[in-house]
Amino acid sequence: MQDSTIQAIAWHDDHIAILDQTRLPGKEEYLICKDLEAVAGAIERLSIRGAPAIGVAAAMGMAFACLQDETSDSDAVMAHLEHNAERLLATRPTAVNLRWAVERMMETARGALPEGVQAVKERLKAEALAIHEDDVTVNRNMGACGQEIVPETATVITICNTGSLATGGYGTALGVIRSAVAAGKKVFVAACETRPLLQGARLTAWELQKDGIPFELITDNMAGNYMKRKGADVVIAGADRIAANGDAANKIGTYSLAILAKEHGIPFYIAAPTSTIDMSVASGDDIPIEERNGNEITCIRGQHIAPREIKVWNPAFDVVPSAYIAGIITEKGIVRAPYRESIEKLF
Amino acid sequence: MQDSTIQAIAWHDDHIAILDQTRLPGKEEYLICKDLEAVAGAIERLSIRGAPAIGVAAAMGMAFACLQDETSDSDAVMAHLEHNAERLLATRPTAVNLRWAVERMMETARGALPEGVQAVKERLKAEALAIHEDDVTVNRNMGACGQEIVPETATVITICNTGSLATGGYGTALGVIRSAVAAGKKVFVAACETRPLLQGARLTAWELQKDGIPFELITDNMAGNYMKRKGADVVIAGADRIAANGDAANKIGTYSLAILAKEHGIPFYIAAPTSTIDMSVASGDDIPIEERNGNEITCIRGQHIAPREIKVWNPAFDVVPSAYIAGIITEKGIVRAPYRESIEKLF
Repeated sequence: MQDSTIQAIAWHDDHIAILDQTRLPGKEEYLICKDLEAVAGAIERLSIRGAPAIGVAAAMGMAFACLQDETSDSDAVMAHLEHNAERLLATRPTAVNLRWAVERMMETARGALPEGVQAVKERLKAEALAIHEDDVTVNRNMGACGQEIVPETATVITICNTGSLATGGYGTALGVIRSAVAAGKKVFVAACETRPLLQGARLTAWELQKDGIPFELITDNMAGNYMKRKGADVVIAGADRIAANGDAANKIGTYSLAILAKEHGIPFYIAAPTSTIDMSVASGDDIPIEERNGNEITCIRGQHIAPREIKVWNPAFDVVPSAYIAGIITEKGIVRAPYRESIEKLF
Repeated sequence: MQDSTIQAIAWHDDHIAILDQTRLPGKEEYLICKDLEAVAGAIERLSIRGAPAIGVAAAMGMAFACLQDETSDSDAVMAHLEHNAERLLATRPTAVNLRWAVERMMETARGALPEGVQAVKERLKAEALAIHEDDVTVNRNMGACGQEIVPETATVITICNTGSLATGGYGTALGVIRSAVAAGKKVFVAACETRPLLQGARLTAWELQKDGIPFELITDNMAGNYMKRKGADVVIAGADRIAANGDAANKIGTYSLAILAKEHGIPFYIAAPTSTIDMSVASGDDIPIEERNGNEITCIRGQHIAPREIKVWNPAFDVVPSAYIAGIITEKGIVRAPYRESIEKLF
C-alpha cells in the first residue's frame, strides 16, 4: 500500500508542484506553478483533476498568490483574493469541492484581516495546507467506513480515477478499495478506461499497478458484459457534486454504470467526502454539467480518430439519481436512503 | 443518398481490392489482394470487417484463389479449396456469415465438380459475385422493411459500423437508417464511437458525413446520459450471429446499450440478414466470442495510453438476450417474440 508515493500536488516555498496528469502514465512530470494563472490553467487543462484535488489546488493557488502579493493595502489584498477566487471558480463548474475550498479560503482571509495583511497571508497558507492534510484524513476515514461494504473476496468495478491523483491523497472510491485491501480482503478491480480522457486506463491503472492491487482494464462499453459474464460484487464510483436528495454527479459514464449494476443486482456505491455534498442544490437536475471541447473525443493524443468537422457531444459528467445508489460512503459513515433525511442528519 | 460511392471490396480480374478500414477516415487506401492469404490477413487485421462484408470477402477470396490454382487435377483443386476454407474460418470465430459464405462456396464447387475444374472456377467466381450482389439487395430489402419502425422525426442511436463498409453495400442497421431518410423521414443519428477500435467514430461518422445524414458522435459511456437528457426514439444495432432463440451477438457494448434502452423505455432493434441467423446454435450462451489482443485497448494508433504489462480483457462481442430485443429486422420482415417460433417460420 504505497499510495503515499503518489502526490498530485505539493507546496514548495517558491512554487506549487502539480503532477501533470495529462502526461501520465507515459511521463511523470511536475508543473512548476508560480502564480495563480498557472494553477487555474492546470485545473482547466486537467493536469490536476478530481473534485477533492482541484479543491486543494485552488486553496494552494489562492494562498500562494496572496503570499506573492506585494501590496500591503488590505483592501487591495482582499480585492486580489476575490479576483483570484472568481478566476478559479470559472475553471470547472461541476465539482463543488472547488467552490467549497475557495469559500473556506475567503472566510479564512476575512477572519484574519483585522490582524493585518501578514496574518492573512500566513493564515491562508496554513489553511491551504490544512485542506490538503484534512483531505487525506477524510479519505482514510472514508476508506475505513466504506471497506465494510466490500466482501472478503470481491470484484469491484470502478470508473475514472478516484485515487491519490484525484484527491489530497489515498482517494475516495479507490481509497475504499485500498482500505479493503489493507483489511486483508482479496479484492480484484475491473477498471473502466473512462473515455474520452481515459482517466481509468491512464491513472487508475497506474495507481493500482504501483500499489500491487490486482486489476484488469476494460473499455467502458464492456461493463455490462463484465457483470454478466465475469460477475462483480460491487460498483464504487466517486462524485463531483452530490445534491441534497442524494443525486450524484460524477464522470460521464457513471449513470450508465449504475443502470447496468441495477440490471445485474450489483450494489452501486458513491464514495465522496461530505465537502462534495451541496445542500444548496435540491436535486441532480440542478447540478451544472460542464461540456468540454469535442476534440477530446475526436482526437486522441493529437491524432484525429474521426472525420473533421463533425458534431460531437461532450458532457464531462452525468448524474446518477439516488434511487440507483445503495449508499454514499462519506468520512462520517455510509449514508443510505431516504437520502434527503440522512444527508440532513450529517450536517 | 450516395452510399454507392462506398465500396468495401471489389473484384478485379487480377486482384481483389479491399478498402483498408483500419486507415479510415484519415486515408482511403485499397489493399491489392492477389492470393487467399492476403484476404485472410485483411479479415484478421480488420481491414475489412462487419459480418456480411467478411462473408463477401471470404467468397471472393476462395473464388480468386481457385482461379489462380494452376493444377487441373480436380481432387487437388478441391483439397486446396478445403484448405482455404479452413484458413478463412479460422480468421474470426463469432460472425456466422463467414461460415455461411464459405459453405455456400464449397457447395457450389461440389455441384460444379462433375463438369470439370474449369466449371468449378467459373461457377465459384459467379457465386462470389452473386453473394456480393445479393447482399446489397438483401440490405435494401431490410431497409425497406425496417424503416417502418423509425418515426417520422426520430433520433436513432447506433453502435459500431453497419453501413456500406460492413456489408456488400448499403448496410444493415445503417441501411435501415438510410431507408428511413430516403423515405423522407427526419432522422438524426447518435453514433457511439465503439471502443476499442472506434468503428463508430472512424467509419459510421465517415459514412454518415458522406451521405449528409445529420448525426453526432458520442463516447460509448454517454449513451445512458444521451437517452435521459437528449432522448432517443429507437436504438438499432447490427449482429454477427443470431441464435435460434433470437439472442444476438454483436460488437462489444451492444448488450449495455440494450439494457440502457430498456431502462429508458426505448425500443431496441437488431438489423441483420437471415444469413446471420445460426439455427445450429440454441442460445446466445453457445455463440463463440472472439477475444482479441489487449493492445487494442492499451494502444491507440501506436501510442500507449495505459501502463505497460497490465491485464486487459478484450472480448470483441457480447450477446444481447432476445428478451431485450423489440424486433429483429431481416430482409424477409421484422421478426418479433416469441423468437424461437418466429425464426423457425422464416426458414
